[in-house]
Amino acid sequence: MIEGARGLMDALKLHALKYKMTPMIGRTHGVHAEPITFGLKFALWYAEMERHLERLRRAADEISVGKISGAVGTFAQISPAVEAYVCKKTGLKPAPISNQIVQRDRHAYFFATLAVIASSLEKFAVEIRHLQRTEVLEAEEPFTEGQKGSSAMPHKRNPILSENVSGLARLLRAYAVAALENVALWHERAISHSSVERVVAPDATILLDFMLRRMTYVIKNLAVYPENMKRNLERSGGAIFSEKVLLRLVEKGLPRDVAYRMVQRHALNVAKNGGDLRQELLRDSRIRRYLSSEEIKAAWDLRHYLKNVDYIFNRVFH
Amino acid sequence: MIEGARGLMDALKLHALKYKMTPMIGRTHGVHAEPITFGLKFALWYAEMERHLERLRRAADEISVGKISGAVGTFAQISPAVEAYVCKKTGLKPAPISNQIVQRDRHAYFFATLAVIASSLEKFAVEIRHLQRTEVLEAEEPFTEGQKGSSAMPHKRNPILSENVSGLARLLRAYAVAALENVALWHERAISHSSVERVVAPDATILLDFMLRRMTYVIKNLAVYPENMKRNLERSGGAIFSEKVLLRLVEKGLPRDVAYRMVQRHALNVAKNGGDLRQELLRDSRIRRYLSSEEIKAAWDLRHYLKNVDYIFNRVFH
Amino acid sequence: MIEGARGLMDALKLHALKYKMTPMIGRTHGVHAEPITFGLKFALWYAEMERHLERLRRAADEISVGKISGAVGTFAQISPAVEAYVCKKTGLKPAPISNQIVQRDRHAYFFATLAVIASSLEKFAVEIRHLQRTEVLEAEEPFTEGQKGSSAMPHKRNPILSENVSGLARLLRAYAVAALENVALWHERAISHSSVERVVAPDATILLDFMLRRMTYVIKNLAVYPENMKRNLERSGGAIFSEKVLLRLVEKGLPRDVAYRMVQRHALNVAKNGGDLRQELLRDSRIRRYLSSEEIKAAWDLRHYLKNVDYIFNRVFH
Amino acid sequence: MIEGARGLMDALKLHALKYKMTPMIGRTHGVHAEPITFGLKFALWYAEMERHLERLRRAADEISVGKISGAVGTFAQISPAVEAYVCKKTGLKPAPISNQIVQRDRHAYFFATLAVIASSLEKFAVEIRHLQRTEVLEAEEPFTEGQKGSSAMPHKRNPILSENVSGLARLLRAYAVAALENVALWHERAISHSSVERVVAPDATILLDFMLRRMTYVIKNLAVYPENMKRNLERSGGAIFSEKVLLRLVEKGLPRDVAYRMVQRHALNVAKNGGDLRQELLRDSRIRRYLSSEEIKAAWDLRHYLKNVDYIFNRVFH
Repeated sequence: MIEGARGLMDALKLHALKYKMTPMIGRTHGVHAEPITFGLKFALWYAEMERHLERLRRAADEISVGKISGAVGTFAQISPAVEAYVCKKTGLKPAPISNQIVQRDRHAYFFATLAVIASSLEKFAVEIRHLQRTEVLEAEEPFTEGQKGSSAMPHKRNPILSENVSGLARLLRAYAVAALENVALWHERAISHSSVERVVAPDATILLDFMLRRMTYVIKNLAVYPENMKRNLERSGGAIFSEKVLLRLVEKGLPRDVAYRMVQRHALNVAKNGGDLRQELLRDSRIRRYLSSEEIKAAWDLRHYLKNVDYIFNRVFH
Repeated sequence: MIEGARGLMDALKLHALKYKMTPMIGRTHGVHAEPITFGLKFALWYAEMERHLERLRRAADEISVGKISGAVGTFAQISPAVEAYVCKKTGLKPAPISNQIVQRDRHAYFFATLAVIASSLEKFAVEIRHLQRTEVLEAEEPFTEGQKGSSAMPHKRNPILSENVSGLARLLRAYAVAALENVALWHERAISHSSVERVVAPDATILLDFMLRRMTYVIKNLAVYPENMKRNLERSGGAIFSEKVLLRLVEKGLPRDVAYRMVQRHALNVAKNGGDLRQELLRDSRIRRYLSSEEIKAAWDLRHYLKNVDYIFNRVFH
Repeated sequence: MIEGARGLMDALKLHALKYKMTPMIGRTHGVHAEPITFGLKFALWYAEMERHLERLRRAADEISVGKISGAVGTFAQISPAVEAYVCKKTGLKPAPISNQIVQRDRHAYFFATLAVIASSLEKFAVEIRHLQRTEVLEAEEPFTEGQKGSSAMPHKRNPILSENVSGLARLLRAYAVAALENVALWHERAISHSSVERVVAPDATILLDFMLRRMTYVIKNLAVYPENMKRNLERSGGAIFSEKVLLRLVEKGLPRDVAYRMVQRHALNVAKNGGDLRQELLRDSRIRRYLSSEEIKAAWDLRHYLKNVDYIFNRVFH
Repeated sequence: MIEGARGLMDALKLHALKYKMTPMIGRTHGVHAEPITFGLKFALWYAEMERHLERLRRAADEISVGKISGAVGTFAQISPAVEAYVCKKTGLKPAPISNQIVQRDRHAYFFATLAVIASSLEKFAVEIRHLQRTEVLEAEEPFTEGQKGSSAMPHKRNPILSENVSGLARLLRAYAVAALENVALWHERAISHSSVERVVAPDATILLDFMLRRMTYVIKNLAVYPENMKRNLERSGGAIFSEKVLLRLVEKGLPRDVAYRMVQRHALNVAKNGGDLRQELLRDSRIRRYLSSEEIKAAWDLRHYLKNVDYIFNRVFH
C-alpha cells in the first residue's frame, strides 16, 4: 500500500504540473464559484496523499510488533530472549508488554487509517465522476477502444472505475468499524476478534491496494478536455467574476451590504435569464458612479485569479 | 415522524402528477442515458416513502411495548396485573417476556429503520444538489428574496438545505451503529446501553423529523426549469436516441454486436466532437441498407420513450 | 436463514421447557440480583428469535422484487408484459416503479435486519461466554472428547464457538453500514453500490446462516450444570433475598428510605465479609420489631420468586 | 483530552506499581489460564494510553491548521500574508493548499483517533465490570457511603460508571463513521459536512474528555480485594498449573501430544468434579515415571510465574 500510495502521488504530481495553469471553474455546492486551475486539484490531492503516506507508515509501524511472552504475557514458561530473537529475525519490534496477544488498539488504528485513506480516494473518484457528467465533460476516465459503456446504449462512456472506487470506500469504512469493536477484549484475551480479522485483514488491505492502483491508472490515463473547461468557465455569462466587482465597490467606500445587493441583482438575473454580466454592470449607472469601465473590465482578467498558483505550488511541492 | 413522512408523500405525489409528462434526460453513471419525465423521479420517491411509512409503523409498533415485571423480569414482587393495567393506560403492549428491561433488538431495529429512511432522504437531497449544478440547472431549492447564496460571491444560489440533509443522514447511520451495539447486554441487563440511548434516542428522532420536514419544504417550493430540461435533453446531439436505432438494427436481423459497433462509432463521435447523430446515421450507407429514413427518424420521437409513463403511474398511485 | 432461525427457535424452546424450573441467580450489571430460572433465558431468546423470524420474512419479501423496465425504468424499448412474465417465472413481484435498478432502500433494510439478528446472536453468545467463566461455570459449550481447549494449557475449555459468533456480529453490523451508504445513488443509477454488494451480499448472508447454525449447535449441545447454579445462588449469603425483606418492612409501614438503609447495611456487610444475611436480620432487634422470624424466613423461599414463571411461559409459547 | 490522558496515565502507573506483585489469575476466553499480577493489567493499559497520547498529539496537530485562501483556495482576492498573519496569531499552521476549506481527511483522522482511544477505555471499563462480578469480586468501582446500588435491591453495588464508559465508546465509534463519510466533499467544497460536524465535533470531544476523567476517577478510587484474587487463584484445584507440568514432561522426552493428554485428563476432571490436581498428579504412576514429587510440586510455585514481572515493568516504565 505504501508503494501504491507513492505511485498515486507520482501520477498526481505529474498532472498537477501538467495542468498547473489550465483554467477551469471552481465549484462550491456544485455551483460555479471562481476560477481555479485543474492542476490545483491534483496538487490538493497530492498534499492529501502525502499526509496519508505518513499516516500509513505510522500505522504500519504500530502493528509491526511481535510478542512471544506466553499464554498470559508473563514469560512464565519462555525466556524474553526468544521473543527478542524471533522479533529481530522477522523485523518486528517486541511489544513492550502484552497479554496473550498484541493489543488490538494497534490494529484498530491501522484499519481506521486505511478507512481515512479510502475516503480520500472516494473524494478523488467522486470528482472524476462529476467531471465526466455529460453536461460538464471536463475529463473522462480511460476508455479502451472496443469497450462498451453500456450494453444497451451505444453512446455511453461511464466512469465505472471511479464508481467502483467510490463503493469500495464504503467497505473500508465498514471494516474500520468492525476493527474498532475488536479492541475491548476480555481479560488477558478472548478470541472474538479472530473471526473479524480473518475477513477484515485480507479484505481491507487487498481492497485498499487495489483502490490505490485503480485510481493511479485512472489519473494517469485521464482524458482531459481543456476546451470544455474553457466553455464551462464562460457559461455563466461572467457571473463568477462578480466577487471581484463587489470587492472593488467596497474598496471605493460602499458598505458591503449595499455593494452586495447592487451586484447580486445583476448576477442572479444573468444566471437565470442569460446575458452578459459585464455588459449589465457597465450599463448600471449606480455602479458606474463608483467604478470606471476599466475597473469593471479588470475583474474579467483570469490572470488575477491565478496569480498565486505559483505560490501554492511552491508550498506543496517543496 | 409518521406525520412527517405523510407530509413528504403528499408533496411528492403533487409533484409527480404536476411533472408527469415533463420530459428530461435520464442519467445513469451521471451520463445521459434515455429520456424520462421529471414526474417519474417523484413517483419513484413516493413509492419509496410509502415503503418507509410502513417500515416506520412497524418499527414504532415494535418499541411500543412496556414491562413492569420486576428487577429480573419474574414478577416476583409485583403482580402481572400491574403491568397489564399500566400498559393499557399508556397505550403500550406488555412485552411477552422481559428481564430487567425490554430487549434492545427492538430499539436497534427502530433506529436501523430510521437510518434507512434517512438514507433515502439523502438520495432525494443528492438528486436536487445534482439538478442545481450550474451546468445542469434543471431545478433549484427555494431561495428567498434577499437571501445570500454566498457571503463572498453575489451570483451564487447554493442547495444548502439539501446539503444539510445529506450530512444529517450520516449521523442517522452512525446512530444506528451505536444502537446495534446496544443489543448484546449482559445477563438480565447491564446498563451500558443507557448512555447511548440518552444521546441517540432524542437526536435520531428529532433529526429525522427535521429532515422529513426540511425535504418536504424543499420539494414543495422547488423551482423547476422545464426549458433547461429540454435544453439538456437536446445537448448530446441526439446520441441518447442511439439505443432505439440499435434495437431497430437488431430487429432487422443484424447480430447485436455488429449493430452495436455500427451505432457506437457515430454516437461517441458526436458526443465528443458535437454534430447531430440523426444526420450522421442518415448519411451512413451501411446503416441505411437496413433502416429507412423514416425508421431512423422515428427513434427521435419522445412519445416513444414516454408511452408507458401512464402505466407506471397507475402502479404507483393505485 | 429462515430455516436456520426456525432451527434455533426449536432448540431454544426445547431448552426453555427443559430448564423451565431450574433456579439460578439473575444478574444485573454482572452482579447478583434475584433468582430466575435457566428456562427463562431461553424463553426470552425464543421470543426474540420469533421477532427476528418475522423481520427476516419481511426483509426477504422486500427484496423479492424484480424489474425489467429498461435502461432508465420507462419500458421504452420493452413491454411491461416481459417484466410480468419473468417475475412470475422467478417468483418475484415486479417493482411498482424502478429506474435502472430496484431501489437500494430495500437492500439496506434487508442488511440492517441481518445486523439486528446478528446482534441478538451475539447477546446469546456473550451470555454463554459469561456462564462458562471459571468462577461461574453454570454452562459450557460442547467440547468433543480429544479436543484441545488450549495448545498450552491442558485444563482449559474455552467458549470459542460463542466467541466466534460474537466477532461475526461485528462484521454483520459493518456490512449494514456499507449497505446503508448504498442507498443514495445518483440520478437513474450510478454503479457505486455494485462493488459493495459483491462483497456484502454473499458474505453477510453466508455468515448469518453460519451464525444461526453454530448457535443452534451450541444451544442443542450445551453442557448445563444445575448444581453450580444452585451453588452460585447461595453464594451471597442470602443477600439476594434482601429485596423481599425490604418490601415486607415497607408493608409494615416503614418509610422506604429507612427500610432500605436498615437492610442495605447488612446486605453490603455480608456481601463483603461473608456470613449469612438471614441470621444477621434475625439478630437485628430493630428489624425484628417489624418482622417476625417467620416473615424473615419466608423471603428465602425460592417458590416466591418463581411463582409467575408459568404465566410468562404461557405468554411466550402461546 | 491530552491532559485527561495524562491524568489517566498517572493513575494507571500508580496502580501498576502498587499492585506490581499482587498475584491473581490470568484469564483467557473468560477461563482461568495462568497467574499474573494485578499490576500487569495496569502496566498494559499504561502502555496503551502512552500510544494514545502520542496518537492524540498527532491528530490534534493535523487539525491545527488554518486557511484564509479565499472562496476556492486561490488567494485571488486576498494575500497569503493575511493567512500567514492570522495563523501565527492563532497558533495554527497554514494548510499548504486548500480549496474553500481545510480538507476533511484531517478531521476524519482526528475523530477516528478519538474512537480508537474510546475503544481502549471501553476495554478498561469492561475489565472492571468483569472483576466486579459477584462470583469474581476482585475489584469494585468506588461506591460512596449512602449510595444506592439499586433502588429495589439493597445488596447491590453495580459498576455503573464503567458501564457508562462502555456505552459511550459506542457513540465515539459512531461519530468516527460519520466523520469518515465527511471526507468525500464535492469539487471545491460542498457543505454537507457541516451539519455532521456541528454535532460530532462538540459531542465526540466532550464525551472523550468525560470518559478519560471518569475512568481516572474509577481507577484512582478502585476498591481492590487481593484476598479474593488469592481465593480465585486457588479455585481451580490447581488446574492452572498444569501447563508447567506439561512442559516438564516434554523436557523429559515425552512427545507433546502424549504429555498433553496425560495432564489434560486430570485437569478437566478436577475442573469439573473438584479435587486437587497436585494430588491427582502425584498419584498418577505413569506421570511419576517421568517426574519426581519435587518436580511436580515446583509447578505450584507462584514465583515461577512472576519471575519476569520486573523485566516487563522495566520495558514499560522506561
